Amino acid sequence: MSIELDLVPTGLMRAIDELALVDHHVHGAASRDLSRRAFEEMITESDRPVPEWMTQFDSQAGYAILRHCAPVLGLEPFCTPEEYLARRARLGTDEVNRRLLTASGIGHFLVETGYRGDEILGPSGMAELAGVPADEVVRLEAVAEQVAAAGCAADAFAERFAQALWERSRSARGLKSIAAYRCGLDFDPEPPSPEEVAQAAGRWLGSGDARLSDPVLVRHLIWAGIERGLPLQFHIGYGDPDVDLRRSDPLLLRGLIELAEPAGVPLLLLHCYPYQRHAGYLAHAYPNVYFDVGLGVSYTGARSAALVAESLEVAPFAKILFSSDAWGPAELHHLGALLWRRAMARVLGEFVAEGEWSMSQAIRVVSMVGAENARRVYDLGAGT
Amino acid sequence: MSIELDLVPTGLMRAIDELALVDHHVHGAASRDLSRRAFEEMITESDRPVPEWMTQFDSQAGYAILRHCAPVLGLEPFCTPEEYLARRARLGTDEVNRRLLTASGIGHFLVETGYRGDEILGPSGMAELAGVPADEVVRLEAVAEQVAAAGCAADAFAERFAQALWERSRSARGLKSIAAYRCGLDFDPEPPSPEEVAQAAGRWLGSGDARLSDPVLVRHLIWAGIERGLPLQFHIGYGDPDVDLRRSDPLLLRGLIELAEPAGVPLLLLHCYPYQRHAGYLAHAYPNVYFDVGLGVSYTGARSAALVAESLEVAPFAKILFSSDAWGPAELHHLGALLWRRAMARVLGEFVAEGEWSMSQAIRVVSMVGAENARRVYDLGAGT
Amino acid sequence: MSIELDLVPTGLMRAIDELALVDHHVHGAASRDLSRRAFEEMITESDRPVPEWMTQFDSQAGYAILRHCAPVLGLEPFCTPEEYLARRARLGTDEVNRRLLTASGIGHFLVETGYRGDEILGPSGMAELAGVPADEVVRLEAVAEQVAAAGCAADAFAERFAQALWERSRSARGLKSIAAYRCGLDFDPEPPSPEEVAQAAGRWLGSGDARLSDPVLVRHLIWAGIERGLPLQFHIGYGDPDVDLRRSDPLLLRGLIELAEPAGVPLLLLHCYPYQRHAGYLAHAYPNVYFDVGLGVSYTGARSAALVAESLEVAPFAKILFSSDAWGPAELHHLGALLWRRAMARVLGEFVAEGEWSMSQAIRVVSMVGAENARRVYDLGAGT
Repeated sequence: MSIELDLVPTGLMRAIDELALVDHHVHGAASRDLSRRAFEEMITESDRPVPEWMTQFDSQAGYAILRHCAPVLGLEPFCTPEEYLARRARLGTDEVNRRLLTASGIGHFLVETGYRGDEILGPSGMAELAGVPADEVVRLEAVAEQVAAAGCAADAFAERFAQALWERSRSARGLKSIAAYRCGLDFDPEPPSPEEVAQAAGRWLGSGDARLSDPVLVRHLIWAGIERGLPLQFHIGYGDPDVDLRRSDPLLLRGLIELAEPAGVPLLLLHCYPYQRHAGYLAHAYPNVYFDVGLGVSYTGARSAALVAESLEVAPFAKILFSSDAWGPAELHHLGALLWRRAMARVLGEFVAEGEWSMSQAIRVVSMVGAENARRVYDLGAGT
Repeated sequence: MSIELDLVPTGLMRAIDELALVDHHVHGAASRDLSRRAFEEMITESDRPVPEWMTQFDSQAGYAILRHCAPVLGLEPFCTPEEYLARRARLGTDEVNRRLLTASGIGHFLVETGYRGDEILGPSGMAELAGVPADEVVRLEAVAEQVAAAGCAADAFAERFAQALWERSRSARGLKSIAAYRCGLDFDPEPPSPEEVAQAAGRWLGSGDARLSDPVLVRHLIWAGIERGLPLQFHIGYGDPDVDLRRSDPLLLRGLIELAEPAGVPLLLLHCYPYQRHAGYLAHAYPNVYFDVGLGVSYTGARSAALVAESLEVAPFAKILFSSDAWGPAELHHLGALLWRRAMARVLGEFVAEGEWSMSQAIRVVSMVGAENARRVYDLGAGT
Repeated sequence: MSIELDLVPTGLMRAIDELALVDHHVHGAASRDLSRRAFEEMITESDRPVPEWMTQFDSQAGYAILRHCAPVLGLEPFCTPEEYLARRARLGTDEVNRRLLTASGIGHFLVETGYRGDEILGPSGMAELAGVPADEVVRLEAVAEQVAAAGCAADAFAERFAQALWERSRSARGLKSIAAYRCGLDFDPEPPSPEEVAQAAGRWLGSGDARLSDPVLVRHLIWAGIERGLPLQFHIGYGDPDVDLRRSDPLLLRGLIELAEPAGVPLLLLHCYPYQRHAGYLAHAYPNVYFDVGLGVSYTGARSAALVAESLEVAPFAKILFSSDAWGPAELHHLGALLWRRAMARVLGEFVAEGEWSMSQAIRVVSMVGAENARRVYDLGAGT
């Protein structure tokens, strides 16, 4: 599955290390100092308190932090959690964020702003901190919930949402749906009728529930997003316990993918763990489907090469992207990039060592997956 | 997962290289010259036009062609697509086919003839070109569609189909069902009653649709095939977008497998990607189930050893077969065999290098999977 | 995926070899001599007769026996099945059992007694033979079937079952449900009402069927087990053909896991193949979920490192356990432990060799997964 990094051809290793990545799906870094408890609760997708008989540092993500982030903070690799957190506190969040983001070598962030945005940096904060461009990706459900919070009649909902979406996404590079979290991906793929939308809006707006989870409305948001015409991201697979993993299999989107195909809007399947082979099949079969294995890479640490390898099976290389999906501690932004580089080096390095690929093919694929595909899909220009 | 080929013990490598394979599920080679567009559209399972911003050569299958087929055509490995296609055109399709098929070392073809048969060679053409025996596998749905095209009353359909199947399969070695493409594998496993068949035939024959997709009729074809008594192949998993991958999981066939068990007819699960572990479980549990990982091997190229390795987990080795499932460009026939040999060398070579298997065990399994199991199941005699 | 064992750092290899494992889910060793037919039928999960054209020795489990158990019986590795079985018969079952169990290095057995208990040793027999403690895990369905066999009115069933469970589990360390075998895991997760239980008990007790498979009763047993408060094991995934693998995906338990969370009872997902990544996700998301990859390890032999590696992805290391799930021939107990040790050595040895983990982290995880987690969950004390 993987080879020692010192066996990777120098030219390939250098190309990987020097590539300015486009992180096509990421959230902001935490802007406040974090207690040990808060830190541990942010290096897991679980939203439950950490049981007293364990620590989240005993995990692939925890070990990867102690191995790879410690040196960025001036510590030896494999320090203790206590040493790590003490050093982190002494440096302060701003300095920690700047060091970790800069060292990640990410050259462009597409920042999704719809989740607990008050605890983390926005696109401009990320751009300032990392010294590279940061654009926005707008979460459809967050826009709809803002429309509802502002007060809206049921039969005005569709139009108000369309207006709000247009305003919120004026300078955005993409949109995102978290249908997987709200109703599962096994929804009816057809666009709902205006009457159905108005009825569903009436039920929701009258319910007092701030959270949008009605499948009719979720579908309406997706189709309004397709009409808006920006690349549309979907949460797929692995996430916090709010997701039913069984109902977030990307194969459930087949009907929607086929109905949306004539619109020509790129559909980007995010994360996908453990369904990366399902996502790869969809990217192989349908011109409008793309995917990444972000999030899973950070959280599988020493095993991340296996995921990256599985993502490089049947999908054309023009359809695979890089993301970190980091949220909160800048360790996750750093690991997303660093572990992806190491995984690509190991997997493609092995293809080259085995005589299956040429080194120039490997370098070409690194560049496509790490930056070029995202630049083309999101129309980001040529990069630096 | 795999080791360098030059670390594979010589005796094992030689046994693998010299084995005359039985390709138990393959289609004919393309008999006409191919434009670049036509060639690219045939080295993917997608039936969509290739988008202008990509080329199918940027894929595992594309890189495998440039690596492994180029030398067979007298080029250096890792030439450009342009060089490859120019050389291919200069040699001409007949010469290209002969070189690639001969170099594949396939010793016996079982050719499934039911898909776009006018564009490709039939069994006799394959036998002539490759200089080895080629027998036929008959697609049930194609026979039924021929019966319908010839004109048939609804209540005569079952008998007419039985006659046609018998005639078409007189010298065939096996039958095949593409239920996965036509109605998904989540059909009622019971044989339909004669009344149900006549009613469904009436609906279909009156519909004007040449394509058989009614689940009642698909089930009837399968049960008629079981009654015919030849080994029965099933498309499973990965294929073109016409298949709903979620509904082509082999575990959906459990009911049918159990109902068919008393008949003693071998059921052969084809391709199976990404469900090879599910197929292996069924082959472990049920005496009448066999499987292969063809198609997936060609299309995953440098990653094909991972698939082959996953196929060698819980299934008894007497239940695993080799196929290429190639259709069209003879590159796919060549890669199906060559990548399988390399994958077996890497995977079994690693078992031996790790001290887990003896070399003679590894050689035994290569011979079983590559040829002997198919010779036994399809009653092909001892081979050369 | 894995490295040569002689490349594993000495300290890690020694820690793995010397660890006294806690086998948290195992059955008794066969207490009678076994014919070749009986032996072959016990080294597979299939309950079908072995077809005449194959032998179960041609499988990963078979090759692992000839490789790893032969030396324990005083034979060369890679002997023939005939040599192996002759030697086994000459030594006699008692001596074979003692050698294989002792050499396994298992330090504590949790023996599940509910399956064909008359053919195998119970906890005291296992303790005597291996010279280490053996405690019991009680199968819920077996207790209920004993209640029914003893005669019971429908409206007394719930109370009688509660009494019997309490009595049977007085000194037990855990309980087990085989819902996956009896009704599939896609059952309604809510506890049934007393009226529903009484009605379902009436249907069952009046049916003359000794086997409990009614989903209402299965659910009642599970909830009674949660109320009993002992750690609760669930059969997941791979098993004999009696299980519908598609309906034994652990993701189907999500509703139950969430409903049971407040009770604080550990839920332990057993085996899980090929759903080990799904199980790892649940163990990541929910504090009350644990899992192992037992059974799959023995039956995948030379491929078992791949399974173990996949189990070490997103789950916190405090949530992963070791089991053999052996039943019958003591070869399976031996292989469960031996192959797990070799797999951990290869997988963690590679993490260390690649510079991703420190050796002390690797040793810590071996100890947690192999023994400490089970000692904590089942309250077994500190061990020797």
